[in-house]
This record gives sequence, structure tokens and C-alpha cells, in this order.
Amino acid sequence: MSGIVVQNIQRADQSVIDGLAECGVATVHEAQGRKGLLADYLRPIYAGARIAGSAVTILAPPCDNWMLHVAIEQLQPGDILLLGTTSPSNAGYFGDLLATSAQARGCRGLVIDAGVRDIRDLTDMQFPVWSKHVFAQGTIKETVGSVNVPVICADALVNAGDVIVADDDGVCVVRRQEAAEVLEKARTREANEAAKRARFEAGELGLDIYDMRARLAEKGLKYV
Amino acid sequence: MSGIVVQNIQRADQSVIDGLAECGVATVHEAQGRKGLLADYLRPIYAGARIAGSAVTILAPPCDNWMLHVAIEQLQPGDILLLGTTSPSNAGYFGDLLATSAQARGCRGLVIDAGVRDIRDLTDMQFPVWSKHVFAQGTIKETVGSVNVPVICADALVNAGDVIVADDDGVCVVRRQEAAEVLEKARTREANEAAKRARFEAGELGLDIYDMRARLAEKGLKYV
Amino acid sequence: MSGIVVQNIQRADQSVIDGLAECGVATVHEAQGRKGLLADYLRPIYAGARIAGSAVTILAPPCDNWMLHVAIEQLQPGDILLLGTTSPSNAGYFGDLLATSAQARGCRGLVIDAGVRDIRDLTDMQFPVWSKHVFAQGTIKETVGSVNVPVICADALVNAGDVIVADDDGVCVVRRQEAAEVLEKARTREANEAAKRARFEAGELGLDIYDMRARLAEKGLKYV
Amino acid sequence: MSGIVVQNIQRADQSVIDGLAECGVATVHEAQGRKGLLADYLRPIYAGARIAGSAVTILAPPCDNWMLHVAIEQLQPGDILLLGTTSPSNAGYFGDLLATSAQARGCRGLVIDAGVRDIRDLTDMQFPVWSKHVFAQGTIKETVGSVNVPVICADALVNAGDVIVADDDGVCVVRRQEAAEVLEKARTREANEAAKRARFEAGELGLDIYDMRARLAEKGLKYV
Amino acid sequence: MSGIVVQNIQRADQSVIDGLAECGVATVHEAQGRKGLLADYLRPIYAGARIAGSAVTILAPPCDNWMLHVAIEQLQPGDILLLGTTSPSNAGYFGDLLATSAQARGCRGLVIDAGVRDIRDLTDMQFPVWSKHVFAQGTIKETVGSVNVPVICADALVNAGDVIVADDDGVCVVRRQEAAEVLEKARTREANEAAKRARFEAGELGLDIYDMRARLAEKGLKYV
Amino acid sequence: MSGIVVQNIQRADQSVIDGLAECGVATVHEAQGRKGLLADYLRPIYAGARIAGSAVTILAPPCDNWMLHVAIEQLQPGDILLLGTTSPSNAGYFGDLLATSAQARGCRGLVIDAGVRDIRDLTDMQFPVWSKHVFAQGTIKETVGSVNVPVICADALVNAGDVIVADDDGVCVVRRQEAAEVLEKARTREANEAAKRARFEAGELGLDIYDMRARLAEKGLKYV
Repeated sequence: MSGIVVQNIQRADQSVIDGLAECGVATVHEAQGRKGLLADYLRPIYAGARIAGSAVTILAPPCDNWMLHVAIEQLQPGDILLLGTTSPSNAGYFGDLLATSAQARGCRGLVIDAGVRDIRDLTDMQFPVWSKHVFAQGTIKETVGSVNVPVICADALVNAGDVIVADDDGVCVVRRQEAAEVLEKARTREANEAAKRARFEAGELGLDIYDMRARLAEKGLKYV
Repeated sequence: MSGIVVQNIQRADQSVIDGLAECGVATVHEAQGRKGLLADYLRPIYAGARIAGSAVTILAPPCDNWMLHVAIEQLQPGDILLLGTTSPSNAGYFGDLLATSAQARGCRGLVIDAGVRDIRDLTDMQFPVWSKHVFAQGTIKETVGSVNVPVICADALVNAGDVIVADDDGVCVVRRQEAAEVLEKARTREANEAAKRARFEAGELGLDIYDMRARLAEKGLKYV
Repeated sequence: MSGIVVQNIQRADQSVIDGLAECGVATVHEAQGRKGLLADYLRPIYAGARIAGSAVTILAPPCDNWMLHVAIEQLQPGDILLLGTTSPSNAGYFGDLLATSAQARGCRGLVIDAGVRDIRDLTDMQFPVWSKHVFAQGTIKETVGSVNVPVICADALVNAGDVIVADDDGVCVVRRQEAAEVLEKARTREANEAAKRARFEAGELGLDIYDMRARLAEKGLKYV
Repeated sequence: MSGIVVQNIQRADQSVIDGLAECGVATVHEAQGRKGLLADYLRPIYAGARIAGSAVTILAPPCDNWMLHVAIEQLQPGDILLLGTTSPSNAGYFGDLLATSAQARGCRGLVIDAGVRDIRDLTDMQFPVWSKHVFAQGTIKETVGSVNVPVICADALVNAGDVIVADDDGVCVVRRQEAAEVLEKARTREANEAAKRARFEAGELGLDIYDMRARLAEKGLKYV
Repeated sequence: MSGIVVQNIQRADQSVIDGLAECGVATVHEAQGRKGLLADYLRPIYAGARIAGSAVTILAPPCDNWMLHVAIEQLQPGDILLLGTTSPSNAGYFGDLLATSAQARGCRGLVIDAGVRDIRDLTDMQFPVWSKHVFAQGTIKETVGSVNVPVICADALVNAGDVIVADDDGVCVVRRQEAAEVLEKARTREANEAAKRARFEAGELGLDIYDMRARLAEKGLKYV
Repeated sequence: MSGIVVQNIQRADQSVIDGLAECGVATVHEAQGRKGLLADYLRPIYAGARIAGSAVTILAPPCDNWMLHVAIEQLQPGDILLLGTTSPSNAGYFGDLLATSAQARGCRGLVIDAGVRDIRDLTDMQFPVWSKHVFAQGTIKETVGSVNVPVICADALVNAGDVIVADDDGVCVVRRQEAAEVLEKARTREANEAAKRARFEAGELGLDIYDMRARLAEKGLKYV
């Protein structure tokens, strides 16, 4: 699967994608049955970003960032770059020049199972990145990889066009075909939580709101 | 010791607790003889919080956050929730709804040897958390644990009612019975440090302030 | 090499040092042939600092911060303290009092392959630190080490008087003798990048700017 | 995809599978274009085992080993159990009783992205396991997962019926459809290596065998 | 609690201790309700040892092994040395001379939340050690710690006289007062497992032996 | 310093080197003042090897093993290959073919701050390797590095011709110029230890052999 660029990928509906961004990672993950999280070692380079977009996937060799240039040509406004490697690397694949290029194409951010650099500039540009490492180590451009093939990134499988949701809690992938249904469930969950939040603020206990006392007693919980 | 909720716990004097918060983790840790620190993998979800409170302890099964609901009922204003697990887990046991509930009961924060989520909301609420992981992974409510029993959390033993101090440097536990004495020593230390700080600001050297030169020479230090 | 303080060290030209600070870690690292980075586990205690200075090096025993006092006497304005240990330690070797002393001597920051504490105070003082750990654990003053000898710090060899550059991307060392030449190359690189940035902002692709298409095809990249 | 047991899976030819076992992980990985390795944190519980088999895949909840019993029913002689989790866990999912059951069904070994226990017994039985952890921590049987669905295990995607090769170097997956072709390439590679080995044993250098000297000079290598 | 040596500690019955060794870590851990395991980073220096003994506990400063000499005087035949530190250290606290001394006093092994060295000699002597690190780094003898006080070791609390069980699966602590009862339950468990093992060997499935099929269906498991 | 092969290096006396091998890592490390250890993450691929030799050093790019072929030509009988990388890599740089070549030139083993593979074959050949990783991941041959320049390997600086000592405890470097003196001290230390060992075997305590009781009392140790 190396050396291939898939040019025509399908994307989910933009309004669905934007809705998923509003819901955030934790809610979307719950709404789709507690699946789809990327590993928790992916951390944002600055706090406060919350985005969603269609994945333009990259499978890159270790310490070689050539495919990022190839992938940027495939971007459409609203997309997110997502990079996995064929072998682990902490090198800094991505910096302010590539971010400038990606942002000029309408890219919303980067998820990378490797390193990133120039994070002060990226922060100033408000170009969010979720990465495994922050490291200035330069890369080479010697070996081709692939773009828009299925990629393992931070322990999760991501297909080109899947929806990526990312915020301070981490990163979640939603299958393109399931995005609309997941959004609907996430909205329902949010509505439900809003009602619950009001009761919690008023001092009600989860033990009562969720009617847990009998089941806890049955499981053997004893108050002493 | 599983399946038990201890309802009446003793707490240290509130003024002592508040004094310890003012002193901060490093000073309190020194004042009690360099003991009581929890492991340094516990990190705050946002910078700048400095709190102290009585520990309401939770011993929870892996990936199961049921006991948090039970513990919240045991909170008194000024308390801190502290959760250890019976087996390691990076799941997100705690999010904005539980924080809303805990905050409504006067809880000052959470120390958790596992994962937390909704950290943007928690930051907005100014509900501080020190955790091992940030991860959106959901939990279940299937198995009972215990509340207000002694708990190992991040390599330290914490009893219900012990004083927890937490700030950007990490988390420290002070035995309830020793809290007043530790505060006194911490205050003395602070006064001593204030005097030292003025001399350092004026450019004096620690070598002279602490009279170290002779002892260094005796230990064989040579200037070349 | 233990028990020695080298008093007269050579430093690079201050204007060269200040120039390297402006260029930042990623550019300097590239300009000197992709070498000189310290390990990526060194992280800044707060975001946004970008400094350079001459290294006053410290080789310290585990959990013993005595040599920091010795080293501070050797500081000249514009210097950076850099500490390696003879055995790994996560203890908090450095806090606000030592920072006050170092800052009074004109020190620009600390790079430490161990722990630091009082990070709220250090942040308030704007005294930047790049460390392996944040931990309040106190240290002792029992064993002598050395000052201004060559030190391994975070996988890199640093000589006294080498230039240290540090920012949000991490830490880089430049040999004193090569500093002027590295700065020149870094400036050239910056000028070159500015031109490229304008083209990227205008939407040009790296594939075209760097003329990559033919070479990619030759390496077997296929568009499907 | 949770709660599903796929009963009829296709397997590669047994002679192909056995051939891949003889070639071993490093050769097979090279023969298929340097892909397919599972993460290097998977380690064998004892040295010297070298196996291959068809994957019966398991997607299991954290700390819950119920699905192993379900999967064992799906085993055919020569198969290998392969378990990924929906959330990280170091618990000991598998021990001597389950190994006895699996071995009775002709299972050749287990690859598990979690913990294993009873390793003295497993060693005595010569039932090889490649695991992320060795830990005696018990598991529960509360939540269903799936069997013979695609699973992410140690950063690799494995489909039911893919061929797993495992030895002291780690674990490699070969797509079922590619197994015969990969074996052919691996055999060629082995033959080629045997010839090379004889020359190396006779003291010839790789520089000469592979005719590297001119290309090294061209890349700028200098002898001093 | 620093600077104290408790001389008279109570021990469990020797026949109980020896019985627990026969049962092994996994069985004992299960028999006492899945508690008592030390963290899985403790690994044996060689395979095949299985021991139990009364804990002579040591609380030691980082990189300082003085207290081991003190503790060895407190050993009785059949005891196990168990060392926790007041701050993490990977130094080699224990080698062949200390092992000779401990073995001469009847000590059965060492559990250490730090480093060990001379492991070839220790293997030749058949003196088993479970440690966090193998590292030759020497230690000093400058600071007193304590012996036979409660110690946190690898995330578990151990009291002097508690029973330590250790084998290839790791290390487990059994409270002295509960040792006899735990042994009884472990024996029952072993008997039960022997019966099960015979059925598994005969090819019966856990699904049938444990009567799981109905409950699985009820939880929604589907065969396709 | 990249792209250079230093051909004439000085080596320590062979009898000194062989003497250091007999003493082993822990003794040599102590004899030279507790310095020179490489990081403890370097582990032997099989137990029981104890070697010493002159370092032929390699500075290699990430995931590129070309320089190993270059280095093997520089080997003399009794040498040890030692490889550091310019950027971290877990790839398998070295396997049975390279080992065959190195062994044919009289090489005693390899120390590598990266990955190794074919470890079953290497074990059969009794070619010992101390590595950071065991991983089958293949490497490329695209970029030149250097041979026999100073190299940082596992946190230690090694010069070509320095003596490397390696056994089950890890790896230690001795400066070539200090090797004879270190051997002498190591021999003295061994003689001293032999006398001590006899007393320990006879049941004498370190407290008495080293006359520690008074100093412990002075430091405040209390028996209760």
C-alpha cells in the first residue's frame, strides 16, 4: 500500500462535521458506543482548541516528512491532516512553513503520531496540532509513503474521509458513514446532560438522580 | 475492605487546612521532614491552582467510576476527592457533570490516580484536578469499591481526613493528626525563606549565606 | 572529574548568542546540520520563553543540589545554568530561592536533567526552566560534584561556554567555537524561509516550490 | 462491532503457514516490504518459541476476559489467539486453565495486548505467549466483546484468518490473501542470505559483497 | 517515622507461609479477593523462583543502602527483605556481598522498589530478587532510614511481618493476620482448579463448564 | 562530524582489557569512582555473557544501518561495536548476517542504543548484544554517519578505543588512558571483597565488619 495517493475521497456532510466539533470528544466517543478514541499520549500543543474535519490520511516513513507536501495538495477546506508512521519516530515532521501551506488550503489542524516543532509559531497562527512528541529534530525527504489509505494512528484505524474530532481531551475518529447518526445521538446526550447538570447544580446527588441506592445495596455496599 | 463506606471521618481544623494551602506543596513537604509527596506523574489539568482540603478517599475498580457518586454524598464543604484504583486504569472517571455535583457540595478539587475528561469545562468551572491521565474513555458502573478507607494513590498512603495540599508542583499528604504541627513548621520555614530571599535578591551568595565554603573545601572541592 | 570548579571559561560573543535566541531551536538545529538537540523529555515549565546563553555546567550527584550554589558564583550576566546528574534523579533540585539568587546574577534560565519545584513562583518571576520532571522532592547537600566540566545532559554533551538555545520546542546546544558560523547559516535559513512563507501563504504548494513532482514519480509514487 | 462472534473465517493454507513459521519474524517482515510488525513492547514469556498460525481475533473490554472462553470454541488446530482491548489494561487475562483449554483445541499460542499470568505453568506446558505485561491481576466476566472481527493489537490491524508469525524478535501479521506470495519471497530471501552468510563467515566484507564503496564516497564519506 | 528500627515483629505461622509459597502469586491474589499485588514493574532477576516469607521492611533514602545492613541483623530464617524508598531511585542497592550476608541469616530473597546488581552472582547463589531496575550504580551510606515500619513498595503497603509471596508472575502481600484464612481459600481454589483442568484437558469448553451461554446471549452476544 | 571514518585508533592493552572483563561491570564502575555506566535500559539479549573490548564507535542516522558495514572493516580481534544514533530509533539495525561478519573479524559483541533482531540466531552464535530494543523493523542504507568519532550512547560519552565492559548488570565505559589504573583498583577491590565474603558467609554482620553502629547512633537511629 506504499507509494499511492488516493485523490478522490468521500467526506461527511459539513454541517454534521461542524456539529460533532461542538459536541466535543468525550460526548462523541460516548455517543458512538465508547469507541474511536486515539491513544491518550496524543496531546494538544496549546489548550482550548476544539475542531472536527475530514481526515486526509498520511502513512509516512520514520523521520521522513515528504508525504506531507503530497497530502497538502489533496486538502479541501475543513479537512484535517492525520499522519501515522510505518515505524515509530519522534522527529519533528511538521512546522510553521507546512502549517502556513496547510492553513492556506483551509486545513483545520493536524493529528500526528510523531513529533511537531515550531510550536510557538503554530500557537500564534492558531493552527492546532495533537502530537505524540514536541521535538525540533529535522526530517528527510527520501522515501515515498501513501496518502488517503487506511492508517493506524495512535492505536486507532483511520480511513480517509473519516471524521476526526479533537479537543483538550484528545482525539476521536468517527466513521464517515456513521457520522450523521453519531451526531444525532450526541445531541440527544447533550440535551440529557443539560437537564442533569441543572439538577446537580441544585445539589441533587447522582445516587438519587440515577436511582443507584438499591442496586448498590444489592451489590453489597455497606455504610458504617 | 471492599464495599464499605465510612460515613463519619475526622477532619483537621479548617484554619490549619487553609494555612497549609497558602504554604504550598514544596514548603509543606519540607516542613514535615520531606515526606508525603504523591508520585510526580500526577499533573494539574491547568496551571495556577493551589488548594488544600480534607481527603474523602475512594478505592475504585479499574474503569468503573460508580464509587464517585457514593463519595460525593460524603463530602463536606472544603473537602477534596482522592481516588486510587485496585488495578491501573487510564479511563476518564470524572468529567463536568460529576464536577458540577462535587462543586455544589463545596468540594475543592480532585486527585485521581487514573484519567479525567472534559478538561475544558473543568477549567472553565475552575474545578482543579490532578490526574495521571487525560483521556475521554468512558467507564462503567458495575462493581462496588469503598469510600473513606485508607487508599494507595500515586505511591502514597492516604487516610480519610488526611489533609491534601496540591498546586503546580504536585500533591502532598499531611496526616490529620500532624497538620497543626506541620503548619507551624511551614510558617517558620516561610519566614526564614523571606529573609533569605531578600539577601539573595541583593546579590548575596548561598555559599556565604549558608556558610558553605569551609565544608566544601573539607569535602575536597577544588577551584581551578 | 568530580570535585572541580573551573573558574575561567570562554564564552561566545554576546551578539552572536542573542542572535541565536532570535532564531530559535528548530532553525539553529537545522543550521548546524541537524545536530545538538537535547532529548525531547526536557519541557519548559511555562510556554513562550525563548532564550540563549553561555552554559555554566553542573555535574551533580543524585538528589543533591549543593553544586547549584557553587555554580551560581560562577555566573556572568547572560549565562544559563545547565545541570546533569551522575545518576538519574527526579528530585526538585531548584526552586524560587535559587532562582532569585541566579536571577540576581543575571542568569537567563536553567536546563536540568532532573526535577524542579516552586514552578508557580518561577513563572511569576519569569525565570524559565527546561526540566525532565516537576517534583517538590527536597534534596540534600552532602556530596560534591563539579562545575564547568563537560556534562552529559539529556543525551547531549555540553561543555562550559557552549551556547544553549531553548524555547517551546526544547533545547539545543551550539559549540562555542561554531556559534558565529551557525548564526550566519541560521540567518540565511530564516531569510530563505520568509520568502517561502509568502509563497505558501499565497497558496502555492511545496510540490511546486521545491520542484518535487518528478522525483516523487521516479521513486514510484502513483496517483489513483 | 461489539457483541459479535464471526464463526466462519477463512484461513491460509497450512503448508504456507508452517513455511512462514520456519522463516521467522524478521525475514517475513522484510519479505512483505517491511510492514506488518506489531509494537516491540510485545515480548515472549520464554525464549526460543517460533510459531505461525491463523488469527482467531478477540476484542475485549478492559479487565474482562470473558471473550477468551467464547474464542476458544472457534479455534481450529493450528490457530493462534490474538487479543486486543477496547481500553488499555495490564490485567492478567490468561493463565494456565485457559491455556489448557486452548491447547486441547490445538491452539499454538497467544498474542495479547494486555497481561498474562501463570507464566511458570505456561512455560512448563510450552504454551507460548507474547504479551505487553506479566501481571497476576484477575479479571471479571461482565461485558461482551467480539470474536473474529478486525482488531487493533499493539498498533497493528489484524483480521481474523490473517497469519500471525511470532518468535523471539516479536510478532508479525501477514494478510491471509498475501501469505503464499510472502512465503515465496521469504524463501528467496533465505536462500540469498545463506549464500551471503558463507561469504561473511569467510571474512568478506559487506562493503565488497554489496559493492558499497563507490556510493559511500559519492555520499561524502571520508576516511581519515 | 525515619530513624527507627523495630526489633520485635510478629510473623505468621511458618507452615502457613510455606503453603502460600506452594500456591503461588496468582492463586493467593485471587484467594484474598484480588488484592495485594505489587506493581507489575517488579520483575525477577531469573526465572523459576517461587518463595514466601515474612517481610522485614526497609524504608531507604534514594541512592543510599545503609539500612540494608541494619535490616539484615533483624532477619530470622525464612524472612524476605522488602525495600521501599523515600524518593525514586534506580541505583543498585544490593549485590552479592549483601546477598551472602542475608543468605547466611536464612533470608529467602529480596523485593526492592529500586535497582539491584551482581545478578550473575545472585543467580549462581540462587538468591532470588524482584526489582524495578537492574543497574550497577553504587550507593552511599549517609542517611538513616527505618526498618520494620510500614512501607509503600511498588504501589502496595507492606507492614513488617506481612507475608510476601513472589514468583514469575510478580509479588503479592498477604496481611499477617489473614494469612491462615487466605491459605485455606487458596487450597480450596487449587483443588477446584485441578478438577477443572482435567475437564479442559479432555476438550470441554469453559462456555459449558461455567455454564456461560445463556448469560452471554442475555448480554447480547450474537453469532454470525 | 558526520561522514568521517577514523581509521587508526589507539587501544588499551589487551591484558588490561581481559582483566576488566573478569572483574565485571559493577566492580569496574566502583573502581573508577562510580562513573561510566551506560543507562540501565540497555539489556543483554541473553543471560550470562561477560565481555570487555575496545570500542569501535558508530554514529548512525535513525533507521539507517549503513555505517555498521563501514565499521566492521575497522574491527580488530577483541573489539566491541558500539552504536549511538543521531535521533532515537527502535529499528533493528543488526541481525545474524552482520553478526556473522563481525564475528569473523574477531568482534566480541555489540552495544547499541537502538534495536536488534534475529536474537535467536545471535544467541545460538553466542554473539552477545546489549540493546535498547528488540525489534525486527528493517533499516535503510541512505545516509552516511561516522565511525570512530566520540558518540553519546545511552547517556554516556564513548570515544573510539575506550574500553567497554558488559555483563548481566549492564554496560560500563572506561577511558582508554585510565584502563590500567582502573584494573588495578578493581583487583584490589576484588581481593578486599573476597575477604569480606568469607566473613559474611560465616554470619558476621556488615554492622560489625564495617564498624557502623556508632555512626548510625550518632545519625539518630533508634532501636525500639
